[in-house]
Amino acid sequence: MALSKTQILAELVSILPRHCIISDEETQRPYECDGLSVYCEMPLVVVLPESVSQVQSVIRLCHQYGIPLVARGAGTGLCAGAMPHAEGIVLSLAKFNRILEIDPDARTARVQPGVRNLAITEAAEDYDLYYAPDPSSQIACTIGGNIAENSGGVHCLKYGLTIHNILAFDMLTAEGELVTIGHEGLDSPGYDLLSLLIGSEGMLGVVTEITVKLLPKPEKAQVVMAAFDDIEIAGEAVAGVIAAGIIPGGLEMMDSYAIQAAEEYCHAGYPTDAEALLLCEIDGTTEEVQEHVDRVEALFHQLGAITVRTSRNEAERMLLWKGRKSAFPAVGRISPDYYCMDGTIPRSRLAYVLKRMNEMSAHYGLRVANVFHAGDGNLHPLILFDANVPGELEKTEEFGGKILELCVEVGGCITGEHGVGVEKLKQMHAQFSEEELAQFHRVKDAFDSRGILNPGKGIPLLKRCQEYRSIESAK
Amino acid sequence: MALSKTQILAELVSILPRHCIISDEETQRPYECDGLSVYCEMPLVVVLPESVSQVQSVIRLCHQYGIPLVARGAGTGLCAGAMPHAEGIVLSLAKFNRILEIDPDARTARVQPGVRNLAITEAAEDYDLYYAPDPSSQIACTIGGNIAENSGGVHCLKYGLTIHNILAFDMLTAEGELVTIGHEGLDSPGYDLLSLLIGSEGMLGVVTEITVKLLPKPEKAQVVMAAFDDIEIAGEAVAGVIAAGIIPGGLEMMDSYAIQAAEEYCHAGYPTDAEALLLCEIDGTTEEVQEHVDRVEALFHQLGAITVRTSRNEAERMLLWKGRKSAFPAVGRISPDYYCMDGTIPRSRLAYVLKRMNEMSAHYGLRVANVFHAGDGNLHPLILFDANVPGELEKTEEFGGKILELCVEVGGCITGEHGVGVEKLKQMHAQFSEEELAQFHRVKDAFDSRGILNPGKGIPLLKRCQEYRSIESAK
Repeated sequence: MALSKTQILAELVSILPRHCIISDEETQRPYECDGLSVYCEMPLVVVLPESVSQVQSVIRLCHQYGIPLVARGAGTGLCAGAMPHAEGIVLSLAKFNRILEIDPDARTARVQPGVRNLAITEAAEDYDLYYAPDPSSQIACTIGGNIAENSGGVHCLKYGLTIHNILAFDMLTAEGELVTIGHEGLDSPGYDLLSLLIGSEGMLGVVTEITVKLLPKPEKAQVVMAAFDDIEIAGEAVAGVIAAGIIPGGLEMMDSYAIQAAEEYCHAGYPTDAEALLLCEIDGTTEEVQEHVDRVEALFHQLGAITVRTSRNEAERMLLWKGRKSAFPAVGRISPDYYCMDGTIPRSRLAYVLKRMNEMSAHYGLRVANVFHAGDGNLHPLILFDANVPGELEKTEEFGGKILELCVEVGGCITGEHGVGVEKLKQMHAQFSEEELAQFHRVKDAFDSRGILNPGKGIPLLKRCQEYRSIESAK
Repeated sequence: MALSKTQILAELVSILPRHCIISDEETQRPYECDGLSVYCEMPLVVVLPESVSQVQSVIRLCHQYGIPLVARGAGTGLCAGAMPHAEGIVLSLAKFNRILEIDPDARTARVQPGVRNLAITEAAEDYDLYYAPDPSSQIACTIGGNIAENSGGVHCLKYGLTIHNILAFDMLTAEGELVTIGHEGLDSPGYDLLSLLIGSEGMLGVVTEITVKLLPKPEKAQVVMAAFDDIEIAGEAVAGVIAAGIIPGGLEMMDSYAIQAAEEYCHAGYPTDAEALLLCEIDGTTEEVQEHVDRVEALFHQLGAITVRTSRNEAERMLLWKGRKSAFPAVGRISPDYYCMDGTIPRSRLAYVLKRMNEMSAHYGLRVANVFHAGDGNLHPLILFDANVPGELEKTEEFGGKILELCVEVGGCITGEHGVGVEKLKQMHAQFSEEELAQFHRVKDAFDSRGILNPGKGIPLLKRCQEYRSIESAK
């Protein structure tokens, strides 16, 4: 039996304090979308519980009556993974914002899911430790959201994605049972549910407490900036660094649009006539950094870089990164709107993919600025468009979809670090066979047989698969 | 409808060449157990198919008639994970032993599941690459078995377990559908089935082809050996190395029994009067190794090591490792039998756990030799016993079980790298709640609803949970 909004509110009032319930449209407005605002929906109600037992009661209510439940961190995600369900409840974990313990000997932090990513590093700083994954949104995004989307960042080339930096968490199942997943040991008996749950976009459970790994701050870090007049050679330089056995802390590439926009925006000293710019951060002990910087500089010169410059101090290093880190807002200044894509390709196919993207850009008449985590093969093409021009948004979405399919075609995949959410449901059919998608659904059923947790996200319904394939083959 | 052995054989003959079927007891004998020979069982039949489509036909047969199917690599596992089922088929993947491709640019190898672990490194040597996980059995064990048990090894402290070194594989589901799991990209859309399947002990699917990561061989490696007259101080030294921000290629500890046995066996030059011996391998660039060796030596001296010696060349390095690597057979010479346990604890609890193990050793009247992957907190206590003394095997198993429960008590877990198999089913109840075990069963159902794949392993039946708890609380 489905409950009406009034009935759901009556039930919620009996399990939550009144100030934890938002039911009027105006106050709900900030929750109608996440960072991908083109997808938005008003929920029936938003709740902000203050204790695990309150969350448990909300989940049990949803389970009992089959009410869709969308858990939400800071809402900075870029794939509409936290978009509300029109018939459902948004469960904000914003009040779970406490750092419970830092253990410098074990190098772990125990935190609540609503703690901001950067706040963990700030709290660990007294011990010269930090939490490694650093999504661009790290000032705002929460660790719970990072787990939902298996977030990455500039440093994940060397230090891994969220999945490599989480040891354990407590989770409420779709039935409202509290279970502990993972532990501080090495391997885990039983199936590896920790890995399964990280990146599952809130569709398998609701995390209530997390133990993260902390790493010692590297003794030293330097950035080598190299500019190239040919983007293919820059791609070779990326492969060359990795082939030399050097794992940089970060290895980022920007193309000419992105370089120019960033330079105008924050004067990082990027050469604006370059076709491609690499930022290669080396971190480690002083000796190690010196040796690797020398080798990286030599390699870049050898490949014909038009400029090679290495930061001599922290101020210079921060300035070189500032340009890269503000590339998105910078591109926002040269175009009314932009759509940030996320896909991954084998590093060796970089040049080919860039060429194909340029062809598509000409075909659609839409400019693309490229910012990548090049070392990982993780692309972030920014398609520039104007939503006020009729049809341009639709054209942009189609172009974006084609970029993702190109990633699959060259042996890569449709996400790097942003997740599938609502945005990439269609491309899941390009990535996976019907049998593979059916297996995902069976896993979902094993955790959430009533399908209340974040319904409609991540895994497309199978009936759409045939449809998609027949449309594609007709093209 | 259950088939008789004759009926099953008749079906198999129609899908496999006759030489791929072993149905007489004598030829089946080598398949009756894996490396943990105390658990053994004769299967109905053993099959050794030669193509993926033959494997597919065998699985489909099992699925149709509900016949238990136990996939098997080299059978070197130590938890009876590959023990046959009396009513079932053993599926040996021994004939899938081809290395299909080495891609030195992408640093990957594509191999069949029956390829030996060390054979991958041997094949990659021409490119100065290697496959990192190195279980003690690496000469014999197969990559398919490594995936089943998420195997580790001496080098997994720095380079990770199997799960960190596998990019993708093809797998046949319990219905016999061929699916591809994972890819060479960074993150994966959909649920992370790759991680879920690695370590799932053949209970969720049968892997038919694997893409592994290859790493560049380190430029240099040296081993620092340090002897201590107090095992607790050796434990502190382990913590000290990690706390100094050094991640050794391997960091191993042996106690006095193990030192003496190893030294007698292969004259590695270990000081036989020591209470504990550390072997700390540093690998990397020449400069990095020099710097870290200096720091590690200084740390060991500072903590009062009675001997510190560093290998000066490859011959010395290999000799120092030879003692450690032959510790198991060496212990086999000082005792008629030994039982190798595997558990993981937080590094900080090492001294406490060793003390408690010594108390238990006195209680049971059974000696224990300790060999650990100390850097990981992964213990390998070897309980020395004599199977010909009535009751001593049972006492050994009870003692072993108590060691695993101790690991759980201090916040660790019941496996390090050996898996659960049959051996640790009982301790799964110490590790997990009933709700957590129920979730494992739901995951199993999502992959293998008929329960044909390796039944009776890994995840205990729930009805035993209550029973176990009541026995334990009555003690």
